[in-house]
Amino acid sequence: MKQSFLKAFNISKLIPRTGKPASIPGTVKYVGKKREAPIKLHILDYNETDFTEKDLGTIAESLPFKESPTVTWLNISGVHDEKKIHEIGEIFKIHPLVLEDIANTTHRPKVEEYDNYLFIIIKMVYFNKEPDEAVVEQLSLLIGKDYVISLQEKEGDILEGLRERIRNSKGRIRKLGSDYLMYGIIDAVVDHYFSVLEHIGEKIEGLEVQLIQSANQELLTKIYSLKQELVFIRRSIWPMREVISTLQRSEYNLINKDIYVFLRDIYDHIVQIVETIETFREMTSSMLDLYLSTVSNKMNEVMKVLTIFAAIFIPLTFIAGVYGMNFEEMPELKWKLAYPFWWIITIFLAIGMLIYFKRKKWM
Amino acid sequence: MKQSFLKAFNISKLIPRTGKPASIPGTVKYVGKKREAPIKLHILDYNETDFTEKDLGTIAESLPFKESPTVTWLNISGVHDEKKIHEIGEIFKIHPLVLEDIANTTHRPKVEEYDNYLFIIIKMVYFNKEPDEAVVEQLSLLIGKDYVISLQEKEGDILEGLRERIRNSKGRIRKLGSDYLMYGIIDAVVDHYFSVLEHIGEKIEGLEVQLIQSANQELLTKIYSLKQELVFIRRSIWPMREVISTLQRSEYNLINKDIYVFLRDIYDHIVQIVETIETFREMTSSMLDLYLSTVSNKMNEVMKVLTIFAAIFIPLTFIAGVYGMNFEEMPELKWKLAYPFWWIITIFLAIGMLIYFKRKKWM
Amino acid sequence: MKQSFLKAFNISKLIPRTGKPASIPGTVKYVGKKREAPIKLHILDYNETDFTEKDLGTIAESLPFKESPTVTWLNISGVHDEKKIHEIGEIFKIHPLVLEDIANTTHRPKVEEYDNYLFIIIKMVYFNKEPDEAVVEQLSLLIGKDYVISLQEKEGDILEGLRERIRNSKGRIRKLGSDYLMYGIIDAVVDHYFSVLEHIGEKIEGLEVQLIQSANQELLTKIYSLKQELVFIRRSIWPMREVISTLQRSEYNLINKDIYVFLRDIYDHIVQIVETIETFREMTSSMLDLYLSTVSNKMNEVMKVLTIFAAIFIPLTFIAGVYGMNFEEMPELKWKLAYPFWWIITIFLAIGMLIYFKRKKWM
Amino acid sequence: MKQSFLKAFNISKLIPRTGKPASIPGTVKYVGKKREAPIKLHILDYNETDFTEKDLGTIAESLPFKESPTVTWLNISGVHDEKKIHEIGEIFKIHPLVLEDIANTTHRPKVEEYDNYLFIIIKMVYFNKEPDEAVVEQLSLLIGKDYVISLQEKEGDILEGLRERIRNSKGRIRKLGSDYLMYGIIDAVVDHYFSVLEHIGEKIEGLEVQLIQSANQELLTKIYSLKQELVFIRRSIWPMREVISTLQRSEYNLINKDIYVFLRDIYDHIVQIVETIETFREMTSSMLDLYLSTVSNKMNEVMKVLTIFAAIFIPLTFIAGVYGMNFEEMPELKWKLAYPFWWIITIFLAIGMLIYFKRKKWM
Amino acid sequence: MKQSFLKAFNISKLIPRTGKPASIPGTVKYVGKKREAPIKLHILDYNETDFTEKDLGTIAESLPFKESPTVTWLNISGVHDEKKIHEIGEIFKIHPLVLEDIANTTHRPKVEEYDNYLFIIIKMVYFNKEPDEAVVEQLSLLIGKDYVISLQEKEGDILEGLRERIRNSKGRIRKLGSDYLMYGIIDAVVDHYFSVLEHIGEKIEGLEVQLIQSANQELLTKIYSLKQELVFIRRSIWPMREVISTLQRSEYNLINKDIYVFLRDIYDHIVQIVETIETFREMTSSMLDLYLSTVSNKMNEVMKVLTIFAAIFIPLTFIAGVYGMNFEEMPELKWKLAYPFWWIITIFLAIGMLIYFKRKKWM
Repeated sequence: MKQSFLKAFNISKLIPRTGKPASIPGTVKYVGKKREAPIKLHILDYNETDFTEKDLGTIAESLPFKESPTVTWLNISGVHDEKKIHEIGEIFKIHPLVLEDIANTTHRPKVEEYDNYLFIIIKMVYFNKEPDEAVVEQLSLLIGKDYVISLQEKEGDILEGLRERIRNSKGRIRKLGSDYLMYGIIDAVVDHYFSVLEHIGEKIEGLEVQLIQSANQELLTKIYSLKQELVFIRRSIWPMREVISTLQRSEYNLINKDIYVFLRDIYDHIVQIVETIETFREMTSSMLDLYLSTVSNKMNEVMKVLTIFAAIFIPLTFIAGVYGMNFEEMPELKWKLAYPFWWIITIFLAIGMLIYFKRKKWM
Repeated sequence: MKQSFLKAFNISKLIPRTGKPASIPGTVKYVGKKREAPIKLHILDYNETDFTEKDLGTIAESLPFKESPTVTWLNISGVHDEKKIHEIGEIFKIHPLVLEDIANTTHRPKVEEYDNYLFIIIKMVYFNKEPDEAVVEQLSLLIGKDYVISLQEKEGDILEGLRERIRNSKGRIRKLGSDYLMYGIIDAVVDHYFSVLEHIGEKIEGLEVQLIQSANQELLTKIYSLKQELVFIRRSIWPMREVISTLQRSEYNLINKDIYVFLRDIYDHIVQIVETIETFREMTSSMLDLYLSTVSNKMNEVMKVLTIFAAIFIPLTFIAGVYGMNFEEMPELKWKLAYPFWWIITIFLAIGMLIYFKRKKWM
Repeated sequence: MKQSFLKAFNISKLIPRTGKPASIPGTVKYVGKKREAPIKLHILDYNETDFTEKDLGTIAESLPFKESPTVTWLNISGVHDEKKIHEIGEIFKIHPLVLEDIANTTHRPKVEEYDNYLFIIIKMVYFNKEPDEAVVEQLSLLIGKDYVISLQEKEGDILEGLRERIRNSKGRIRKLGSDYLMYGIIDAVVDHYFSVLEHIGEKIEGLEVQLIQSANQELLTKIYSLKQELVFIRRSIWPMREVISTLQRSEYNLINKDIYVFLRDIYDHIVQIVETIETFREMTSSMLDLYLSTVSNKMNEVMKVLTIFAAIFIPLTFIAGVYGMNFEEMPELKWKLAYPFWWIITIFLAIGMLIYFKRKKWM
Repeated sequence: MKQSFLKAFNISKLIPRTGKPASIPGTVKYVGKKREAPIKLHILDYNETDFTEKDLGTIAESLPFKESPTVTWLNISGVHDEKKIHEIGEIFKIHPLVLEDIANTTHRPKVEEYDNYLFIIIKMVYFNKEPDEAVVEQLSLLIGKDYVISLQEKEGDILEGLRERIRNSKGRIRKLGSDYLMYGIIDAVVDHYFSVLEHIGEKIEGLEVQLIQSANQELLTKIYSLKQELVFIRRSIWPMREVISTLQRSEYNLINKDIYVFLRDIYDHIVQIVETIETFREMTSSMLDLYLSTVSNKMNEVMKVLTIFAAIFIPLTFIAGVYGMNFEEMPELKWKLAYPFWWIITIFLAIGMLIYFKRKKWM
Repeated sequence: MKQSFLKAFNISKLIPRTGKPASIPGTVKYVGKKREAPIKLHILDYNETDFTEKDLGTIAESLPFKESPTVTWLNISGVHDEKKIHEIGEIFKIHPLVLEDIANTTHRPKVEEYDNYLFIIIKMVYFNKEPDEAVVEQLSLLIGKDYVISLQEKEGDILEGLRERIRNSKGRIRKLGSDYLMYGIIDAVVDHYFSVLEHIGEKIEGLEVQLIQSANQELLTKIYSLKQELVFIRRSIWPMREVISTLQRSEYNLINKDIYVFLRDIYDHIVQIVETIETFREMTSSMLDLYLSTVSNKMNEVMKVLTIFAAIFIPLTFIAGVYGMNFEEMPELKWKLAYPFWWIITIFLAIGMLIYFKRKKWM
């Protein structure tokens, strides 16, 4: 039990980090889980009629795609190679502070406008199978005219559905520009939060059933652990409200007004998700209260049993003890009917106590 | 008890959902309880003098009514038929994102303006008979010039009173346009919240009476369950404040200024309802505290009884035990008055203890 | 005890109501306690020099007073007669929604401007003698040019002092218009809140003294009940802040600028009252905590007594039991000094235990 | 203990009062502690070169000082003489509502601008020696061109340091006008709050040390009482933030722009003081939690001792009881080694229990 | 344990202080820990090509550096020498209130603009080795055209990395002005907060592991102490948000617009740090709840053991006592098989109780 609990929640996930303290601002320093997998570059280039998809070997290979008037989506899986990040910076002319933030996977979601691109950090949340814990991954987006660069921590399939739609030319995506692609990516990420909520909902439901059946220490640590998970997830999603509302309010040149109605839709979703997380947090708090009350109730019940036994038998034992004394002069001992009489008194006493406890509703 | 509790609150009600993740934005996908009942279309068409009411077979049949200058109220019971939703979209030229939201019955209340119609989502709340639990249903409204389309999850009678007023030409409703009809619908929904509050108030009152009579585990789970119901209802009503205040503040062309005073009235009601829900939540929290304190009190009382019995009889039993020993040389055993003397000491001791506990206010 | 508690707080006071659901907006429907007393109409008509006071039979009788340039204060005691309310509406040309709100005595305090009158709802709070519980009554004010109509739920004496001042021409009231009369009425109501606070303060003080002397279940329900009363009173007073600040900020034609300094004074009072109520709520919460801690402390003390008795006498009883055994071969039984020796060991053991408990600070 | 607690916190300090309800607005009615001391009038009149200081007999004597172009500081100790307050009103032409507020020493801190003076209410806080409790006194300031009138509840020495500086012409005070004098007074009052904080800090520290050494009921009431004191002090200081920020923001003619930097300094101090009070409140709450946990811990420890004793000796006593029975046929009684054998079993059983409890970490 | 706790948190750290009450505003009075170390003056003077670094004997020696067009960074370690502070005031023409604030090391972080310099107070936070407690040190910055004066409480190495970068001309620092140097200093301080967070995170993790293994009083005081540390650290960092956002928003002449993007970066960091601290606070609260629940659980377990032992053996002891009585007429005593029969009954009773407790899930 102890180990499963300790594995279940890892505080270090919550701690934001920075590169080496006192480093030069703009120093690209990977901060995050240690990763070894090679970085993958994948490009999708499309307009209404044409479509190209391929894996690239170097970032420089993406330049011709970027220059072309078609929409280019360069997806980079892995930000732990600091040299590659620098290369992106040079090729796409990205501000050093942006590069630093891309490499720091503990960064807070945000949106920043630069002269000819927009920089967005959002968080992808999903549940691991084994152990069953929430994982948060950073997704950085660079949106320029006709191109979107997305940088994930590792390969994943949250965006696969979107890619499929581009390949099959489903919906309006092939007809619209890089701003709609940006929307599509954020929408896919936010949509995935709903399945995270469902997973948590099921967990809470399971814990509630257990709680009513038996309140034990293991359940307590599970509720506690779930509460910490919710804190963790909320911290990742909460600032996204701000990101979307900033995108909505600001008059960025790169974002077409037609996209605003879609952003409003995402915003609605995030508000609803955040409210649901808050509700879940309240529910886990209520569960802890319920747990404590249940334990108190049980203790009370145990106490009553103890008291009933003690209160009935301790006096009786005393009376038995009296007639076990060896005084030479104890007239009762010699009476003929003393013994049955003793039993009658004893039984009356016991019944009296039982009636008393019944009246007190202890039984 | 366990089962009634588990039936009493269903967490899945709280979880917002989305269609299949990564689907194309604007995909109409029914999200909600599984329903089989066929969709019903009902039309009311009226002006000050004329009045038509009938059930329609297809949505297309409503077009002539919509075109006419009379006010048309098309009520659709059931949004689980995705084809029908698409049909509405085509006939009334509704934005695909709106259609998606109509079909998603877990959506948050909101109001959105489109070029020639207004889209409103609100929630109808009522209590089921068996089991006695809160049900929240989504009501979507599309308000255009001279027409209102209302979409409910299933047939219900919350709006029946309003229809009756239109039929009988009671009040000013027949003289005014679609904006007043919109107000009438929202007003009927909000009015119904008051009866929900009354029902909850009665439940709380019942629980309070029980709490004072006996604090048991079943009561605890009932209070807990009621608390969750309140969280659920508040989440449905709370955003309606925003909806009404947006309607009030914005300068929508479709809403006549004369309606503003009526909207202000609804707004007042919602504020009062939300405040009452908050008060109810505080009261259930207080009840939980009171419950815990009551359990503590009872435990304390049990402890005292136990302690009094133990503290009086354990020493006496010891004294009896002393004279039950079989040492050959125990001079007291041979004294003539040893036995009555022993009783005197014993009784004094017991009385002494009783006085001591009286002084400590344990009795 | 149970009954006094149940009488002490009545949840139905907290539930806002509406008339019959789905009634026509603007339907006058009395909502509140059932009342039988006939409605009383009382008129005060004055200017700097003239003064008339009389009881009226019908509302129509007030019309000539209203027309005259003198200030007219029509006070109506009782709003449970729906016909009378309608009459007022017709004679004074009041909006139907206003009439509806007047008859609904569970309405929230508010201020609304209409074309030629101002509509204000405020709450009068006082403590009943028997049972000692807070009563909140609604006072509706209609302020027009040269007239004020006040509608109370029943006759009361909170405004009597103000009437006396008008009769005796004390202060500046006879020199000023209907706006100053409005101020005078609100001021009298708010002033009365202070005596409500004093009453609650005394109750809290009384409970604190009791709490330290003895923490029992009855006290607990009293604190709980007081907490609910505070919730109830706060709900009535809190929105008055808004009412006054709206009156202050808005540029109503009916309110002279000279009155603003007086309204600011009321505003200050309400802020202070609300803060005091908040403080009282914190104090009752602290008292509940203190109560729980006191119960814990007492339980701990009880436990210690029990443990000391048990821990001292149970081993001794065992030793006595040993020498009560009937084995044929028990050499100690035949020793000459066995019995006194046994006592010495026993007493040493008991003293040892006592020292041990002293060290543990249990005694 | 009970008495010291009851003396330690006096709820009536928290209750704002008003004069006789329904009195004429602007009626001067002293509200506060009963005081008998005669009112003292003290005047300081100065400019860069001249300086006059004397005690006055009547308020009228101060008029020539006020008329002169020098800065005049009239300090009035005692506001319980309603006639004197009226006199001030007449001589200095003060609004009746201001006079009412001066006499009501339970008023909330505030600032109000009148045509040719500024009215400020602030609170002086200090700790009484015996009993050791916080005292809050009201200080009213009337700031006009070239004069400041300060009204305290009774003589005190918080402002003595400021007077000394004026006498000795220390700092820039003699060179500047009545606005700087106002700043000087407020600064002296706010500076004194720091020593109040230090005193409370020491109290908290003392309670923490006691808490770790022994958690008893007396300590509990002390923490509770301290918590109430903090509520009381915060209520007095909190609104001063608003007072200073109103002074800073508003463009009062009477306040020179050069003073703004000094007001900003006071504002910083008040923010810091309020934050510290909040921190203290959190700390006392934590202490109560710690207290409860400590009591729980102790109870647990007591329980363990009880259980160990009971669980070891109750079975042993039973076994001893078995061989104390008087059945005629009990073969064991006649065995030669029965008695030593009995002891061996008994001791084994006891050791077994001890090992069991050691494993459970109860010992 | 007691001592380590008392050393672990020192409330006096939390109390803001002022100089002697009622002192002249602008009086320089050192407030803080007593320090004896001599004050050190260190100067760095640089532009893109030149670089000078030396320790100074007097503040006056820094004047030629300040006059030169190169960027001058004067670092002063120690503010406990009031004369030196005055000297700085005279040489650099600093407002007396600023000097007062520099000497008061308990001041709240803030930024103030003066005519030709900017005054910033921020806090450096680090963890002491022995005892392991948070230390907060004040860093005051005076930023003028081409110069920055930094004043620390004592020598430290948080800024050493920055100095190294200037020496080695790493990054863009040598090319930019005093505003970028200001940014560099604040950035170094804020960067160091991350390592503080990591340290706290490790502490929380350690406490969690201990909590699950054994819940004892020492652990409780450690959690409590950590909670207080978090309150302390939050108070130091929280107002820095305001400082940076004021720097960002205001249009100070001294700050070049190019620096704004860097300030935004710091702002993001602070927001993230504050959020993390809030999360940590929630976690310690959860830990306290978990602690209490664990203690309750353990108590419950102890109770059960006690009750099982008592409930089984007390009745049995009674039965044994019955047959230890010495009545002359007790027929059972003479039965042949009475004794084995007695054992059978006894064992059945015991087994019955065990089954009963198994069913109740107490075993």
